[in-house]
Amino acid sequence: MSEWAEKIVAGDVRALARAATAVENRRPEAVPLMQELFPRTGRALLVGITGPPGAGKSTLVDQLAKALRRENRQVGILAVDPTSPYSGGAILGDRIRMQQHHADPGVFIRSMASRGSLGGIAPATLDLALLLDAAGKDVVLIETVGVGQDEVEVARLADVTIVVLVPGMGDDVQAIKAGIMEIADIFVINKADRPGAGALERETQALVEMAGQNGNWRPPVLKAVATEGRGIGEILDAVRKFQEPGGRANRRADLWRMRLREMLRERLLERLPEKELEAAAWDVAARIRDPYSVIEEWLRRM
Amino acid sequence: MSEWAEKIVAGDVRALARAATAVENRRPEAVPLMQELFPRTGRALLVGITGPPGAGKSTLVDQLAKALRRENRQVGILAVDPTSPYSGGAILGDRIRMQQHHADPGVFIRSMASRGSLGGIAPATLDLALLLDAAGKDVVLIETVGVGQDEVEVARLADVTIVVLVPGMGDDVQAIKAGIMEIADIFVINKADRPGAGALERETQALVEMAGQNGNWRPPVLKAVATEGRGIGEILDAVRKFQEPGGRANRRADLWRMRLREMLRERLLERLPEKELEAAAWDVAARIRDPYSVIEEWLRRM
Repeated sequence: MSEWAEKIVAGDVRALARAATAVENRRPEAVPLMQELFPRTGRALLVGITGPPGAGKSTLVDQLAKALRRENRQVGILAVDPTSPYSGGAILGDRIRMQQHHADPGVFIRSMASRGSLGGIAPATLDLALLLDAAGKDVVLIETVGVGQDEVEVARLADVTIVVLVPGMGDDVQAIKAGIMEIADIFVINKADRPGAGALERETQALVEMAGQNGNWRPPVLKAVATEGRGIGEILDAVRKFQEPGGRANRRADLWRMRLREMLRERLLERLPEKELEAAAWDVAARIRDPYSVIEEWLRRM
Repeated sequence: MSEWAEKIVAGDVRALARAATAVENRRPEAVPLMQELFPRTGRALLVGITGPPGAGKSTLVDQLAKALRRENRQVGILAVDPTSPYSGGAILGDRIRMQQHHADPGVFIRSMASRGSLGGIAPATLDLALLLDAAGKDVVLIETVGVGQDEVEVARLADVTIVVLVPGMGDDVQAIKAGIMEIADIFVINKADRPGAGALERETQALVEMAGQNGNWRPPVLKAVATEGRGIGEILDAVRKFQEPGGRANRRADLWRMRLREMLRERLLERLPEKELEAAAWDVAARIRDPYSVIEEWLRRM
């Protein structure tokens, strides 16, 4: 094993931070590093936390991290912010959050913006989660802002996914709930001291019952007030109790089926010369050629 | 040209609806059809409407459609709901909206859920937009729920993108705004009769000014109360006034650069046998093999 990999496995925070940056920026040195570390992964529990904007996910994640630290578990936090695809840097709140866990080397926090369509956010998140796994984190909390396709893909990375709802989200909650029913292993009604929490709980419960049992697991609907630390213990209990229908191996094979496909796709694409793509893009935009014929021609030659 | 394509170009709604379904479901017959229709596209103005859940985008889109119809323009509406990746069917609200424009053959509405990572929502949306373009729509309104990566990709399809904000969206608005600054050509503060609208307008205006001019265009910040039809005319004026820095051709070449890459990626992937992928996924999940070596082996053989 390289010195770098050894340091990461031994829990060296600087080596880990440097690796995280290399992975995030898709640096060439990240590939052999991840290859070395891969056999050391598979031990950490990956917990996804998703839900609409304003649901208080960050606060919830911080509280979960604190509770896990009290049990002396090593914690990684990945905060995925898909709203900033181009800026691709640190996030405002990050420094504030870092301060909270500052003195604690048992918590590693990383915020990431998504980076346009190249690669995508889910692959980078998975690599970072694997890295934290290899670095000895017991639990990796993966927080995503929003409830779009990205969040669904990030949710698929996790061994267990918590969907956070909040009273008074407006008209689109119905749509949101329909979509996340399929990814939620655990529901949390956060800000449960607000008006409408009871109604939202009943509504969500009704949706869960309508959806029926998934294997031997029916998603519980829990209440929390994350700002006051209320309901955190119950959430962690539910995470521990969670039993995958078909088992964790099944879910992880699903994940790797998806990920291998993406990795291959990405690598194959590198074979296309950039200049040729550029010329074709202008031709198609001007309707000189049609995109379907362009692709067929490329395929014949590759 | 095939009879089907001819009917679509002539404005036959049933032929168009059948084509939309074929495109959405990636039916093999959709490929030659789109190939035939492609030279007939490029005329319609594609308008993206995006923003956080609860911003009242659907109402705004309906009002824009009504106003365009009063000018006797043919309108297409594509409502993209990325929150329902698996169910992949019609959307509750759709039928209600259809009724509103029911008697009017000048409006064609289609709702689509995103469909997992295979293909993705942006490519299907683009194909549907091209289809509506070929069918003679003057304006295609593309509405997306949310502000994630999907929305950014959908926004890139559009010739002009409207970002809808609303007072009182909570803590994540700051993050949302940072991300959408880069895709917004026009800002609309909807529900502008609510408390906080003035403050949100000033904040957004400040962000726009901080970002500076993009070519010869500075995104205007408009106010609207879509439920009452207020501010709709001003939005349409801004859409008409909008001048791309570098021109529309530039933006469309960007789009096709991205899209050709995706199309190629997708087609290349078909060369991988499903059985082999399945076996590798289980091996990797069990840490018997590492994914990086698997990919290298496949690449050597392909």
